[in-house]
Amino acid sequence: METLDSLVKTISERGIRKKAAIVWASDDCTRQAVALAIKDGIIDAIFVGCRAEIEADPAMAACSGHYSIVEAADGDEAAAIAVSMARNGEADIIMKGMINTDNLLRAVLNKEHGILDKGAVLTHITAAHIPAYPKLLLLSDVAVIPYPTIDQRRAQIKYLTDIACRLGREKALIALTHCSEKVDERHFPFTADYVTLKAEAEEGKLGNCVVDGPLDVKTSLDAEALAHKGLHSPIGGHADAIIFPDIEAGNTFYKTITLFAGADIAGLLVGAKVPVVLSSRGDSARSKFYSLALAAL
Amino acid sequence: METLDSLVKTISERGIRKKAAIVWASDDCTRQAVALAIKDGIIDAIFVGCRAEIEADPAMAACSGHYSIVEAADGDEAAAIAVSMARNGEADIIMKGMINTDNLLRAVLNKEHGILDKGAVLTHITAAHIPAYPKLLLLSDVAVIPYPTIDQRRAQIKYLTDIACRLGREKALIALTHCSEKVDERHFPFTADYVTLKAEAEEGKLGNCVVDGPLDVKTSLDAEALAHKGLHSPIGGHADAIIFPDIEAGNTFYKTITLFAGADIAGLLVGAKVPVVLSSRGDSARSKFYSLALAAL
Repeated sequence: METLDSLVKTISERGIRKKAAIVWASDDCTRQAVALAIKDGIIDAIFVGCRAEIEADPAMAACSGHYSIVEAADGDEAAAIAVSMARNGEADIIMKGMINTDNLLRAVLNKEHGILDKGAVLTHITAAHIPAYPKLLLLSDVAVIPYPTIDQRRAQIKYLTDIACRLGREKALIALTHCSEKVDERHFPFTADYVTLKAEAEEGKLGNCVVDGPLDVKTSLDAEALAHKGLHSPIGGHADAIIFPDIEAGNTFYKTITLFAGADIAGLLVGAKVPVVLSSRGDSARSKFYSLALAAL
Repeated sequence: METLDSLVKTISERGIRKKAAIVWASDDCTRQAVALAIKDGIIDAIFVGCRAEIEADPAMAACSGHYSIVEAADGDEAAAIAVSMARNGEADIIMKGMINTDNLLRAVLNKEHGILDKGAVLTHITAAHIPAYPKLLLLSDVAVIPYPTIDQRRAQIKYLTDIACRLGREKALIALTHCSEKVDERHFPFTADYVTLKAEAEEGKLGNCVVDGPLDVKTSLDAEALAHKGLHSPIGGHADAIIFPDIEAGNTFYKTITLFAGADIAGLLVGAKVPVVLSSRGDSARSKFYSLALAAL
């Protein structure tokens, strides 16, 4: 059984510490996640702002030698500094502390000083450990792109393939989900995009992946459900990753597996020069820690 | 703990048998569901078509006195006959056997001979027993309306309120879900509809219900998640029913709770003159039986 802890162990054993810039870590929870990642040898931290809180935190005292502090007057300045460190190669990961997501994204997306190349697609990737599913499942997008275009889905396939291969999968099995397995261009134009993307993947244009869809959540993730419907799919009910029709479906899946299926979750923004960990207030320190690990993969 | 079995018990104890027209029950699974519902005193069945299969089925032999058979040459004729029985008050429920959903719906929606009043909204309601949630949860719409208009959502609120009240809830607590709690008319125009519907419910225009939204799946169904986000809602994380932003989110929730959270499910179409049980090939006999019970509520 592959879990987020086994992911942490893999990264930890590799023995490479990534440099993570932590933006305005005024809250215990963010610092606790950072301390866990330092302890497991995954990162060295550069805290931007909040010197007093960091120096007063016993969890950080135990990490001495593996973190530094850079001054910042407020969250916005901290975001700008972290982004400039990523631009200059001084930080491999950015992690959000207690500033608004919008404020951090403004710095990331800034046309002059930001770290998103023109034409690059910024999207959210989740890695979920669902106890009833035998491997880590990657998801996109539960948080950022409302209704992905075909270009955005193409980028999502590329990012998911990249992460799945780093997780050791031979080929990334990527399901494009929908409420049914029928293509219905009139009511659901994106199902026609699915057909195009599937064909592109078959022609080898999308890299080391197998793409199929439309499939529903069950025919993507359950061989029995697939057989019961009399369907065949090269994914065979064993998807490594799901691309959802829209943010509403993605977010619903994410919230449902954490609320009712005991799932552990790691999440991050990809597409910028470095991965950005954007956990929300509701996430536990452990979940933020897992997100840091995923960013360090 | 309220379950679908407790729902069955309630209906069973009431001692009223509804008349259910079963359209083309050529499969064991449909007949098995009907036999269970007859045995529990919930329905008497009128099978339309498939005499040979019914007479050869030992499960039906045990139900003698509680079913009859009406001849039909094929599934389409069976659908037309069942619909005309509902029109004439001879059937209180229609249940689909082995014919295509589209063919049954064509008979239901037929302008001359059908059973959907002009302007009425046909939508799908699910009742779910999720072991980790303390009561039956109603859902709309996981199967029929792709992107509900405000009028369609108003009808969904009415139907859900009606069923929740029959389940014995004092007032129906109905959550309108979205990926966040923010109203965002530009990217998600339906969130503005949510505000309108919430106001209408507060003014008492929508009947015996409390409506709130946008809420996400967690802040609808978990008091702790609501508190953690610092939010207040008259639903308090104890929703009786969820209305989803679109069919993709609804279907994703439905498939996820059945695949990963051990949920039992009953589902039916409402809005026509009688409820229509439309279970799909993938559903178990038990699930079809629960759907019959919900239709008989």
